[in-house]
Parts: sequence; structure tokens; C-alpha cells
Amino acid sequence: MTTAIEKLRQYGYEMPAFMAPVASYVPTTRSGNQLFVSGQISRNEAGPVTGKLGETMNVVQGGNAAELAALWVLAQVFHAGVELDAIKRVLKLTVLVNSAPEFTEHHLVANGGSNLIVGVLGDRGKHARAAYGVAGLPMGAAVEIEAIVEV
Amino acid sequence: MTTAIEKLRQYGYEMPAFMAPVASYVPTTRSGNQLFVSGQISRNEAGPVTGKLGETMNVVQGGNAAELAALWVLAQVFHAGVELDAIKRVLKLTVLVNSAPEFTEHHLVANGGSNLIVGVLGDRGKHARAAYGVAGLPMGAAVEIEAIVEV
Amino acid sequence: MTTAIEKLRQYGYEMPAFMAPVASYVPTTRSGNQLFVSGQISRNEAGPVTGKLGETMNVVQGGNAAELAALWVLAQVFHAGVELDAIKRVLKLTVLVNSAPEFTEHHLVANGGSNLIVGVLGDRGKHARAAYGVAGLPMGAAVEIEAIVEV
Repeated sequence: MTTAIEKLRQYGYEMPAFMAPVASYVPTTRSGNQLFVSGQISRNEAGPVTGKLGETMNVVQGGNAAELAALWVLAQVFHAGVELDAIKRVLKLTVLVNSAPEFTEHHLVANGGSNLIVGVLGDRGKHARAAYGVAGLPMGAAVEIEAIVEV
Repeated sequence: MTTAIEKLRQYGYEMPAFMAPVASYVPTTRSGNQLFVSGQISRNEAGPVTGKLGETMNVVQGGNAAELAALWVLAQVFHAGVELDAIKRVLKLTVLVNSAPEFTEHHLVANGGSNLIVGVLGDRGKHARAAYGVAGLPMGAAVEIEAIVEV
Repeated sequence: MTTAIEKLRQYGYEMPAFMAPVASYVPTTRSGNQLFVSGQISRNEAGPVTGKLGETMNVVQGGNAAELAALWVLAQVFHAGVELDAIKRVLKLTVLVNSAPEFTEHHLVANGGSNLIVGVLGDRGKHARAAYGVAGLPMGAAVEIEAIVEV
């Protein structure tokens, strides 16, 4: 059977190393079997992936940014001590898209994140979701994703 | 006793037919007795109800849009197999209002959704809530509401 | 041992009196041992603390506004009948920052709220968090914070 980590590699990703929040909070908290994952911004090895949809970034680029934010959600679950194959269900993703006022395709951008989660975790990755446009994100990031995961 | 469905009719609504998400996620997930409902945009038979508060839509129109989004929240709970009369408690609504930067009456818009939920479900509908202005919503919708419901 | 109320006083705050929501919802709901706290805007004795980051308010002022919103989160938990010293864990804060499109320091503003919660509650206050920029907030408030608390 292909493990979730192997599927992640098929997307071209290795599990990112742990990164502590840049502020006075923690990456995850746990309540019973629910794991709350702090908002993860789009980020690669070079730093935050920045941009504003409908202004400096198109839907394809935005989808790639959402995929990176979703990768970090998986990384924080992993670094909380939960193997990806031990995730019971991704309950909810909230996908925040840094976007200009006239942009209307937040759902297409968000799919970049949703598709990675479902691609790596299969049915256990199928989540409820809200996606919408925000006025801005920390460090100018293009996308931020927060999650609630059943473990 | 008046059922919740009958009360919904008193507001002029029939239960909408099931509508699948336009993207790679699911309408609801369940964790124990909590049901997470994906963000539902304002929508009627003709399609999305669009607009931006403080720009192309006033508070009364916005309240009507919020009512429609709330109707879809109830519809998704129903189509998840939970009769409205079996809902134990609406725990939380998040009401996202597509609005111009100077708009400040998001709470009045959100009341359109809150009032429908409480009108149909009574005390079981009394929810915690956050309401705020977003830069934009999928398909230009005026309002999006997501929910957590105890079933 | 210093109580949480005493620590709050060290920050210069007394527990605010109960304030009912200005709309058709309730301040808190409870599901098992999770308490959902409605979005609390920045507010002092004179009323809402208003402003837009990157436009009419700087990061220090924004951090002070976030501290006030966090104070109101604690107040709503208290008025729901949960002594601050009985809080088991603050699971999640969502910090909404009223900000101009080019503002990028939402995390620094949010720290004003996070620091108060951790300062008053210690390890029990360490929370998952999402912070982002919104197009506007009810009554023009500078910051709104919602929370999920384990009690």
C-alpha cells in the first residue's frame, strides 16, 4: 500500500521540517480527538509565497500557493506526533485567499489545497470547507489555510 | 406542534434540493456529535445572489442574502441525514459579508441569517457567531455562512 | 498562587460586566467540554475601539485593540459561568484585523491578544491561531477575536 508520505512525494514534496510560529501561539492544540491547526501561510524554501489574486497573481499561481499552505497543514499535524496514515479525517479547512475586491474565483484557488489533501489522504482527506477573500495576510502571503483534523 | 420544516414554509421556503460543492470538498463532515457545514453562499433558484455591501447592495438586501445562505446551511444539515427537528443545537455561525472597506454594519446583515435559524429552530437555533467583512466571495456572492451544528 | 483575575489586574484590567450581543445570537454555546465564544470586538468603557491598520492605526495601537478584544473573550467565558482558573485550555483564537489591502503585519497585531491570554492563563492559554486582514468589522472596530475554549 502506498503511504501518505509516498503520495506526498508523488506531488514533489518532502515533509517540511518543524517551524515554530513567528508569534505567541502554538502550531496545534488538541481537544479529545480533534486537532486544531493554526493558520499556515503559503511558503516554500525561500520564504513566504506572496501575492494578491486578481492583482499580482492568477488562479494557477494561487492554486500552487494553496497547495503549499496545505502542505504546511500536513506538516504541522505530522510534527504534532500524528503520522499522516493515522489521521482519521480532515474535518474542516478554512482557505483564506489574499485577493482584490473584484476577484470571484476563491474556490478555484482553494482547490489547490483541497486537491493535495484528498490526493494524499484519500477519503480520509475529504473535508468541509470555507474559502473566501481576505484584505491581506501576514507577510503578504497569497494564501493561508487553517484546519481541524480528527486524529 | 409546528415542525421546523413548517416554520421554514412560513418564511416562504421549501427545503432546497441537494447541491454538490463546485469543488473538491464535501458539504459536511461529522466528528462525534458535531457536524461541520461547509461555507454556503447566498443563492436562489436563479443562481448566486451577488453584491458588495456599501457599494452595490444595502443592509436590507444584504440581510435577505444572509437569509438565503442560512437556508442553505439548514439544507446541507438536512441532506446529511439530520432532520431539522433532530438538531440539538446550532453551536456556531460564521457570517462572511462581501463588503466595501468603509462598511460597518456586518452585524445587521448577519441578523438576516441568524433570525431565520432562530425562527425555524427556536432555542436550539441560538448560536455563537462571528460576522465580518471579506474582500470577496466565490462567484461574487454577497454573503457566505459556515456552521458547526450539534446533532 | 496568583489567580488569573489577579494577573488580569496586573495588566490593568477588571473583569468587564456582562454585555449582551447587539444582535440575534448568544455570547457562548457549549458542546461537551468545548465552549464556542462569539466574535468580540475591540471595545473599552467609551465604546468600540475603531480603526483600520495601515491607514488610521499603527501596529502598537492595533496590538492594544487586540488586547481589548481578548479581554472580552475572557469576560464572555467568565460570564458563561466558567472561572478563569477553571479553563482547561484555550484551543483556538481567530484574530480578525480591520486592515488596508497593503498591510502585512496582522500577526504582530494579533500578538496583543495572544499575549494577554497567555499572560493571564499561562500554559493553559497557549492556543492555535489564525490571524488575517478583513475588509471591515462591525461598528468599524479595529480587531475582532473569536475563540474555542476547553472547559
